[in-house]
Amino acid sequence: MENQNIVENRAIKRLFNDGFDVVEEMLEGFCKANKEYAELFEEDGRVVVSKKKSEESKVRIIIGGGSGHEPLFAGYVGENFADAAVIGNVNTSPSPDHCYNAVKAVDAGKGCLYLYGNYAGDVMNFDMGAEMAQDDGIRVETVRVTDDVSSSKNPSERRGVAGDLFVFKAAAAAAAKGLDLDEVKKAAEKANDNTRSMGVALSSCTLPATGKQIFHMEDGDMEVGMGIHGEPGVRRAKLESADKVVDEILGYILEDMQLESGEEVFVLVNGLGGLPVLDQYICFRRVAQVLEEKSIKIHQSLVGNYATSMDMVGMSITLVRLDDELKELIDYPCDTPYLKF
Amino acid sequence: MENQNIVENRAIKRLFNDGFDVVEEMLEGFCKANKEYAELFEEDGRVVVSKKKSEESKVRIIIGGGSGHEPLFAGYVGENFADAAVIGNVNTSPSPDHCYNAVKAVDAGKGCLYLYGNYAGDVMNFDMGAEMAQDDGIRVETVRVTDDVSSSKNPSERRGVAGDLFVFKAAAAAAAKGLDLDEVKKAAEKANDNTRSMGVALSSCTLPATGKQIFHMEDGDMEVGMGIHGEPGVRRAKLESADKVVDEILGYILEDMQLESGEEVFVLVNGLGGLPVLDQYICFRRVAQVLEEKSIKIHQSLVGNYATSMDMVGMSITLVRLDDELKELIDYPCDTPYLKF
Repeated sequence: MENQNIVENRAIKRLFNDGFDVVEEMLEGFCKANKEYAELFEEDGRVVVSKKKSEESKVRIIIGGGSGHEPLFAGYVGENFADAAVIGNVNTSPSPDHCYNAVKAVDAGKGCLYLYGNYAGDVMNFDMGAEMAQDDGIRVETVRVTDDVSSSKNPSERRGVAGDLFVFKAAAAAAAKGLDLDEVKKAAEKANDNTRSMGVALSSCTLPATGKQIFHMEDGDMEVGMGIHGEPGVRRAKLESADKVVDEILGYILEDMQLESGEEVFVLVNGLGGLPVLDQYICFRRVAQVLEEKSIKIHQSLVGNYATSMDMVGMSITLVRLDDELKELIDYPCDTPYLKF
Repeated sequence: MENQNIVENRAIKRLFNDGFDVVEEMLEGFCKANKEYAELFEEDGRVVVSKKKSEESKVRIIIGGGSGHEPLFAGYVGENFADAAVIGNVNTSPSPDHCYNAVKAVDAGKGCLYLYGNYAGDVMNFDMGAEMAQDDGIRVETVRVTDDVSSSKNPSERRGVAGDLFVFKAAAAAAAKGLDLDEVKKAAEKANDNTRSMGVALSSCTLPATGKQIFHMEDGDMEVGMGIHGEPGVRRAKLESADKVVDEILGYILEDMQLESGEEVFVLVNGLGGLPVLDQYICFRRVAQVLEEKSIKIHQSLVGNYATSMDMVGMSITLVRLDDELKELIDYPCDTPYLKF
């Protein structure tokens, strides 16, 4: 029987070989392309280990989750950022073994912090990985990113999306400064408590294994608040202008954050994979206008594809409320393939 | 009459406001988001000027071309890279006035070098800009990037695509080192002579002003060798696996370059805007395999959306043949919004 998972002769706008090999082939390409930053852990081909780990005994930062969000997660392994990334299949949590092996690969005697987006599969598997590590006498703590305001009224139940980046960055900076595991965890929690995101999708992504979209969207429709795996948002409607879309999304974020005039934020306008950078800047322009009207100061910004959903057309907005401590942590120098500060 | 250029209620997967305002709104967003790197020249809203220009009197590097290729061109303004970027409308050359104003904005007495992809409109308008500057007594030289092997048998007639990046980088490094205009020009020419690219498209991009694709491609088709404005390639066919597509494109590049075993290259796998980073790494993996088989050494690599065609799904491969001089120039430190070495 012919293998139906080969991209060849299928009505899909993707470039891969066998749809079941995409993660292994991606990781092989990733480690070759970023050979000065990262390599696969010899005992586990789903654990990407930093080649720029501090020689000193420090808390180690382990990030991870399903594939399909590149450059998240492997792209943020490097100096003063993640020490390891654990990589699951497309839209699927890494297994407990992979989570455990990441600890084995990088622990330096000061314990490890797991950081990942709050999804049931990731929670279960990382928790099991942490238990396995604790059986070896290695302390592992966890902070789950819960930045997506559209996913629940209850902040602790929310999903993690592009805000991952800031929680990872704050924790990694705290670890780089030599803080202990409790303090590093506290830094991550503080960053998470002050980070809010929301997105909009104009299309589904396609899944390599099936060659099909997760769901269908008519051209010219949008779904406000959709998650990065296609989780339902708050409403589906005809597409509106960039300014109206930004106003709606940013409105939800601002209502949730209750930022005061005079406060400072870090802004990320994140492309979900298929939206041109041109359009992302048009969206950023509106974010900046709205914040300016409210006298909220933009400390720094990023615009680009930082946490994607493969070929999904859409974007998300993330705001991080800054105080002196968070500013210092998020501005801390780092050197990874996709983020250099 | 209702304005037909508003994205609202149209069957298009883009986020903008009025289709005729996209460049102004993008530049406003770009300069706000990258306020430490760039600002608009006060006399001309289409000239993006580096805020990190050397204080010393050095040769100034001016890049530019049509919009729709973001982060090219404005994204590469910064330290030890472009001193200014001249920005045209979508897929349209900047006007001669804009090209001239960029010289006025940045010249520091040592002359300027125009660098851009070889397209008829750009050639005409940048040449006119250079003449206007020369009337003011400012010397302006030009190097046109001609890296796209699929566009002509004659190297000097070829179009410029993602290889732009390396020609810009080599020239900017030469200027940063304090070389004179003739030497900086020579460095750019040498980089161009040693840079070859070719791409594949799986879809057209959409044009904001019309809300339509430039041309139609069936799902599951590809066009090998297509240009970044949709210029015809060498063949249209059913989509093949990533490995076969890479083998074909890389075959054209290698035939043209005649690299010998033992030589060293810089590799760029460039996403055209709609192709997931996941797929780009699968393509890079195959490039690395083929080069390894031929004992061609990869010095460094980049994988990502560096020179796009808005939402076009596709990618291009660029190889730069390196010797010690080009290696030093291309490895030279730089700091721009989208490229930090």
